[in-house]
Amino acid sequence: MTAALIPGSFDPFHNGHLAVTRTAAALFDRVIVGVGHNPAKPSGLFTPEERREMVEASVAGFENVQVAVFTGLVTTAATDLGVDCLVKGVRGASDLDAELVQANTNAVTGQARTVLIPAVGSAALVASRYLREIGTRGGDISGLVPEPVWSAMQRKTGALGQ
Amino acid sequence: MTAALIPGSFDPFHNGHLAVTRTAAALFDRVIVGVGHNPAKPSGLFTPEERREMVEASVAGFENVQVAVFTGLVTTAATDLGVDCLVKGVRGASDLDAELVQANTNAVTGQARTVLIPAVGSAALVASRYLREIGTRGGDISGLVPEPVWSAMQRKTGALGQ
Amino acid sequence: MTAALIPGSFDPFHNGHLAVTRTAAALFDRVIVGVGHNPAKPSGLFTPEERREMVEASVAGFENVQVAVFTGLVTTAATDLGVDCLVKGVRGASDLDAELVQANTNAVTGQARTVLIPAVGSAALVASRYLREIGTRGGDISGLVPEPVWSAMQRKTGALGQ
Amino acid sequence: MTAALIPGSFDPFHNGHLAVTRTAAALFDRVIVGVGHNPAKPSGLFTPEERREMVEASVAGFENVQVAVFTGLVTTAATDLGVDCLVKGVRGASDLDAELVQANTNAVTGQARTVLIPAVGSAALVASRYLREIGTRGGDISGLVPEPVWSAMQRKTGALGQ
Amino acid sequence: MTAALIPGSFDPFHNGHLAVTRTAAALFDRVIVGVGHNPAKPSGLFTPEERREMVEASVAGFENVQVAVFTGLVTTAATDLGVDCLVKGVRGASDLDAELVQANTNAVTGQARTVLIPAVGSAALVASRYLREIGTRGGDISGLVPEPVWSAMQRKTGALGQ
Amino acid sequence: MTAALIPGSFDPFHNGHLAVTRTAAALFDRVIVGVGHNPAKPSGLFTPEERREMVEASVAGFENVQVAVFTGLVTTAATDLGVDCLVKGVRGASDLDAELVQANTNAVTGQARTVLIPAVGSAALVASRYLREIGTRGGDISGLVPEPVWSAMQRKTGALGQ
Repeated sequence: MTAALIPGSFDPFHNGHLAVTRTAAALFDRVIVGVGHNPAKPSGLFTPEERREMVEASVAGFENVQVAVFTGLVTTAATDLGVDCLVKGVRGASDLDAELVQANTNAVTGQARTVLIPAVGSAALVASRYLREIGTRGGDISGLVPEPVWSAMQRKTGALGQ
Repeated sequence: MTAALIPGSFDPFHNGHLAVTRTAAALFDRVIVGVGHNPAKPSGLFTPEERREMVEASVAGFENVQVAVFTGLVTTAATDLGVDCLVKGVRGASDLDAELVQANTNAVTGQARTVLIPAVGSAALVASRYLREIGTRGGDISGLVPEPVWSAMQRKTGALGQ
Repeated sequence: MTAALIPGSFDPFHNGHLAVTRTAAALFDRVIVGVGHNPAKPSGLFTPEERREMVEASVAGFENVQVAVFTGLVTTAATDLGVDCLVKGVRGASDLDAELVQANTNAVTGQARTVLIPAVGSAALVASRYLREIGTRGGDISGLVPEPVWSAMQRKTGALGQ
Repeated sequence: MTAALIPGSFDPFHNGHLAVTRTAAALFDRVIVGVGHNPAKPSGLFTPEERREMVEASVAGFENVQVAVFTGLVTTAATDLGVDCLVKGVRGASDLDAELVQANTNAVTGQARTVLIPAVGSAALVASRYLREIGTRGGDISGLVPEPVWSAMQRKTGALGQ
Repeated sequence: MTAALIPGSFDPFHNGHLAVTRTAAALFDRVIVGVGHNPAKPSGLFTPEERREMVEASVAGFENVQVAVFTGLVTTAATDLGVDCLVKGVRGASDLDAELVQANTNAVTGQARTVLIPAVGSAALVASRYLREIGTRGGDISGLVPEPVWSAMQRKTGALGQ
Repeated sequence: MTAALIPGSFDPFHNGHLAVTRTAAALFDRVIVGVGHNPAKPSGLFTPEERREMVEASVAGFENVQVAVFTGLVTTAATDLGVDCLVKGVRGASDLDAELVQANTNAVTGQARTVLIPAVGSAALVASRYLREIGTRGGDISGLVPEPVWSAMQRKTGALGQ
C-alpha cells in the first residue's frame, strides 16, 4: 500500500495537473490531490473550496484519487495524511531547480520523498498563472483545462462582469 | 507581407530589446513593438505613454517598425494588429522555460506563432528590472539602453529627487 | 523577399523538424531545408542523398520550401544560398545553450542571423538520435516522423536484416 | 502490485544510482535494476556481467529489488519485464532535457511511463563517466560508490596494471 | 591583498551561504558578508540588524571575514568597501541565468567582477524563502542553518506566538 | 598567497578562456593555465606542445600567469602544482550541470575547491569545438581568439592544405 500526495495551489487545476494525477493513479495505491492555501494570504482567483470542488469534479473518474484541502507545510500535510511520497510535475529547468531545492530541504527536515513526473504532450506545457490571465480576460482556455474548470472559469468571469 | 509583434512591458526599453527589434526589422516586412500594460495594476516606473515615447525615439531609424500600446492579452493584440507572429528575445534557460509554456498555450488557445531571437553580444544580457534598480538609484546605465531611454531615466530620477 | 535556411543532419527528418519547417514556411518568402554532411565522416544511418529525398517527400506540400545538400560551414552555405537567416528548433536548456554559442560565433564570424522556433506540442519533443536507435531496432516510430521517413526507415531496417 | 524498471549502463553503479534504487524500493512493490548493453558496441570499462554482479552486491539489502541484463530498447525491456514505469535519476537541466525527450518519445511509441527521482544530498551529484576517469587513473572513489563497486574498481585497475 | 564581497539579503543566513563564505575565506585575504536592505521596502522576517547579528555569530570562526550592512546598489557597496570581486553561490540554471545578467550588467556599469561558487553537498541546496516558510510555521530547520540562526528563528517564531 | 589552476584542453585557447584568465589573474596571486591531455587518446587538432605555446603567447601580458601541461586527473595536477582552487568559465545551464557534478566529485575525492567565472560580453560565448570546425574549413575566427591562436590556426590549416 503506497500513498502519494500531489500538492499545489491548483488556481486553477489544468491538464498538466491532470496528466500528473493520471500517472500517479496508475502507479500508487492511493493518491491525494492536496489543495494548499495560506489563510494569511489572499485566496487567489478561486477560493480553496472552489478549487477543491473543481479538482474533485476533474478527477472523478479515478477510483483511487481523493482531494483534500490543507494549510501549513506540505511536509506536515504529508505526515498527517500518511503518504509515502510527494508527486510533482516538472516542465523544464526552472521547475527542476525549485524541486531540487525543495526535495533536498524536505529530505533534511522531514521524511517526505519526492518523485517528479515529466511533462509530455501538449497538455502538459501549461501554467496556472497564464490560465488566470487568459481566463479572466475572456480568453478560451477550454483546450488546456478539464471541463469542470472551464465551466467554473466561465461562471467566475461572468460573475466578475467580463 | 509578414508582420511581427514584439510584445513587452519595456519599463524601460533596453539594448537587448533594440537588438531583437533590429533582427525582426531585417526579417519581417512590418514590425510592431507592442507596449503592454494592465490598467488594473500600477503603471511601473514609466507610464505606458512614456514607454511608448521612449521606444519610438529608440527605433526611429527603422523604416518598417511602429510602436503601439495595448492592454489585455498578447494574442488578442496579435489578432487585432494582424500580425503573423510574436517575436521574443531569449537569454537563457529561465527565459526559454517561460516562452515554451507561453508558446504552447498560445498554440492551443490562439493562432499566434512565436519565434525567439537568441541574445548575443554584451548588449543583450540585460534585464529591465535591474535597470530600474540601478537607474533609480542614480547608477549610470547609458551603456545598456538607447540614448532616449537614458535621457528619460535621468529626467525621471531627477523628478524623483535622486 | 526574405529567405531562411533550416540547417541540420536530418538523419532522419522528424515531426519536430516538420513543425519548424511549417512555421518558417508561414513566415518567410523562401525556405531551404539544408541537409548538411561532412564528407570526411561516416554518412550516418541514411546517406545525404537518401536524407534529401526523405525531406523533399516530407515537405512536398509547402510551395515555398526547397531542399539542398551542403558540405562545409553553415554560414558559408547561408551566404552561398543567399539566405537572410538561419532557423533552428529549440526544445530545452541544452539546445538553447548550443544555439546561443553558435549564434554568437556566427554573429562575430559571419553575417548569419539566427531565429529559434520553440518546440510545442507532442510532435516537437523528439530527437533524431533516439529515432535511429528505436527505428533500427524495429520499433514503431510512425507517430514521430512524416510518412516518407517511416517508409524509408522500414526499407532501411529491412535491408539491414532486422 | 506495481513494478518499476531502473534502466542504465551502470558502468559503474554509483551512490546516485543507489539513492534512486532506495527511493524506488520504498515506493514500488517490485524494482528491477536493468543493466542495458548494446552487443554491437564495445562493452565499456566493466562487462555487462561484471556490472550485473556489482549491482547485485550493492542492492543485496533490498528485498524487493532484482537485477537484470537487457539488450535492445528500454521500452521493449519494460514490456518484457512487465513493469509499470521507468525510474530515472535527474541531477540538473541537461538530465531533464534528455528525459523529457525520451519520456515523450516513449509515450508516443510505447506504453512506458517515466518517473524521475531528484538527486539530493552529496551522494547524488555524481556521474559514471567521471568515476571511470578517476577510478582507472588510481583515484579514490570510495566515497561515491557502494563498497562492492569500489572493490571491483580496485581489482579492475589492478588488472589494468595501474 | 584581495578582498571579496558576498552580497545578499540573508533573511536568514543558511548553510549554503556558510559554505560560500568558507570557500571565499580560504581563497581571499579579506571577505565581507554584506547584508543588503532597501529602506523603502518592508524589512523581511528579520530586521537588517538582526540579520547582521546572525551572520556575525555564524562566521565568528573565520578570522578574515567581516559583516556589513549596506543599502543601495551592490556595485556601489563594492566600490565603497574597496573589494575586488563579488562572490555568489549558484545552485542551478535559474541562479546562473540571474547571475549572468547581473555580471554582464555590472561589467558594463561598474568595475565589479563576479565569481560564482557551485553549491555542492546537501548543505548547499537550500533557499532562504523556504526556510522562512518552514521556520515560521514551526518546522525544524536546524539541519539547514548555523546554530545562531536556528536560535534566532526559535526566538522570532516564539515572539510571533507560534 | 593564493594559487589557482585553470584546467582545460585549450584546443584551441579562445577569448572566453582569455577572459577567465584575466579575471583569475586579477584575483589570485598566482595562476596556472593547465593544458590537459590524455596520452591514450588522439592529440586533437593541436598537439599539447602547440597548445602550450599558443596559451603562453596569449597570456604573455599577465605577470602572475604561467602555463603547464599535465596528464592524468585534474585534482592530482592541482595537488602537484600546489594550487588552492580550480577556476572554470561557465556559459550556461549545460556548463553548470557539468561543473556541479565535477565540483561535488572533487569535494568528495580530493581537496580541490572550484570557483566559476560567468561568461560575459560577446567574447565569452564561444566554444573550442566550433572554432576547430570553422578554423579548419578556412573560416575567419580572428574575432574570437587571441592573435597567436589565429596565427597558429592559419599555419595549421595551411599545413592541412586548406
